[in-house]
Amino acid sequence: MAETVTFLVDPLPVDASTEFLEASFREIEPGSGALAVNDFAPHRGDGVFETLAVVDGHVQEVEPHLARLANSARLTELPEPNLEQWRLVIRRAAERVPAEGEFALKIALSRGVDPGNTPTGWVHVTPGADFAASRERGIRVVTLDRGVARGAGERSPWLLLGAKTLSYASNMAAIREAKRRGADDAVFVSADGYVLEGPTSSVLARIGDVIVTPPPAAGILHGTTQRSVFAYLEGQGRAVEYRDLTVDDLRGADAAWLMSSVRMAAPIAELDGTSMPVDHEATAELNAYLLSPRD
Amino acid sequence: MAETVTFLVDPLPVDASTEFLEASFREIEPGSGALAVNDFAPHRGDGVFETLAVVDGHVQEVEPHLARLANSARLTELPEPNLEQWRLVIRRAAERVPAEGEFALKIALSRGVDPGNTPTGWVHVTPGADFAASRERGIRVVTLDRGVARGAGERSPWLLLGAKTLSYASNMAAIREAKRRGADDAVFVSADGYVLEGPTSSVLARIGDVIVTPPPAAGILHGTTQRSVFAYLEGQGRAVEYRDLTVDDLRGADAAWLMSSVRMAAPIAELDGTSMPVDHEATAELNAYLLSPRD
Repeated sequence: MAETVTFLVDPLPVDASTEFLEASFREIEPGSGALAVNDFAPHRGDGVFETLAVVDGHVQEVEPHLARLANSARLTELPEPNLEQWRLVIRRAAERVPAEGEFALKIALSRGVDPGNTPTGWVHVTPGADFAASRERGIRVVTLDRGVARGAGERSPWLLLGAKTLSYASNMAAIREAKRRGADDAVFVSADGYVLEGPTSSVLARIGDVIVTPPPAAGILHGTTQRSVFAYLEGQGRAVEYRDLTVDDLRGADAAWLMSSVRMAAPIAELDGTSMPVDHEATAELNAYLLSPRD
Repeated sequence: MAETVTFLVDPLPVDASTEFLEASFREIEPGSGALAVNDFAPHRGDGVFETLAVVDGHVQEVEPHLARLANSARLTELPEPNLEQWRLVIRRAAERVPAEGEFALKIALSRGVDPGNTPTGWVHVTPGADFAASRERGIRVVTLDRGVARGAGERSPWLLLGAKTLSYASNMAAIREAKRRGADDAVFVSADGYVLEGPTSSVLARIGDVIVTPPPAAGILHGTTQRSVFAYLEGQGRAVEYRDLTVDDLRGADAAWLMSSVRMAAPIAELDGTSMPVDHEATAELNAYLLSPRD
């Protein structure tokens, strides 16, 4: 058992024989030198990733994350990932951490070492932070203009707005800006005033009896946690909807959350310095669902 | 002597004693595992870089590149780089490659290993490609919408448009899109129709007797090669100007180039499938200047 676990992965082609799977990855000392400086991941932020929650030994929503990894690979013209390999690698990595508690399991696929095109991969598992306050009391959020109009991702696919790439410098800068303003997190807004997504989360709002989220066509990543919550709510007979949201719509919502795989449902308690209603009951229900074993 | 050289660098604080400089970096086998997978460079594309040309043993424009590295570090809130250290590291790396020929020398500064904030750094030198055809016959270029309006970088500094970060996935996707369209390279255009920059270059145009380039306030990186060429031309008594350029302005120019540190002046011979005039005399003069030793 270890609190932090790192595997280096040699990504296999989709048609590789299953006999190669177990030998296609190896555990290394966390923090040790592993990637070449001219691997396209550090060289160009040119790779894709997913972060999965591990809760009491169960890896949440492996298939939706792998489906999105494959979609990100397609959008960035990386070789199609061998999902059977990634399923095994994820399982083996999760087995190496304690069977109790929360962990964040990141999988990444890079274009490989420049100038070749043999992808490299890795898994890195770390203990989850203590999200109790974020999940219960909520978070303070600021809106930040992303500069692009709604729908820019469809007109300009080279912006990779729908792919989860390793190029997150601007996402990290947005979180620093939020903290500078005394907040905890940010929500990106389009140049034409529509709510997009958080730097590492999806935005959900309850407006009356309907739970709404901006459509992926707005130029955002389709959230795995948002989708999981939508499926759960639909199963409960509740109304969910993809709908364009202005900042005023969000400000006037009956409740709102940032949703992400590891922090899960964090209610927005303050938006741009103004208090927002926190629906404690719905939040507790959502996090109970999100923390339960999900496949 | 080696054709490819890699140094790992422990970035020193600006007030470090000079006695530590020589011991602050070490050569490693190129392509060997060096960076932790949770170093912020592969983890988040969260770091900054510069690429310098080495021409017959001379590193071009070290000080302008270091000034821009320091500016990128400031914009991304990385610790201020110790420029004395980087000068030494650059010199030592350049000494390891043959004294004839062209090389590309990349320096990079990452935020370090998550969750710490001790930066990591590296230098990687590779042989320059054969740019003869690009510099003489020219390149085919397509315009690609970047989705942001001109000036978005000033309104949204968290987009880091003026910083040279390691998050280049979208720049690489733009070059792939250009190749898919049968071209060699791309020029990003703002959502409101203004010429911005290439994915790895600046745009210059000759309009009558004036050499023009878009102003950095448009939301672009201030090009070191563009600045060097402007200084050279001004020294020759030629008119240069920062000026907003529409795509029509570029299409109607008397000549145009993409300028970058290693490929240098590449005339645009074709823009979106339409031929453009190539000023062979001016191009030869610019590349003769750019290939001469510059500090």
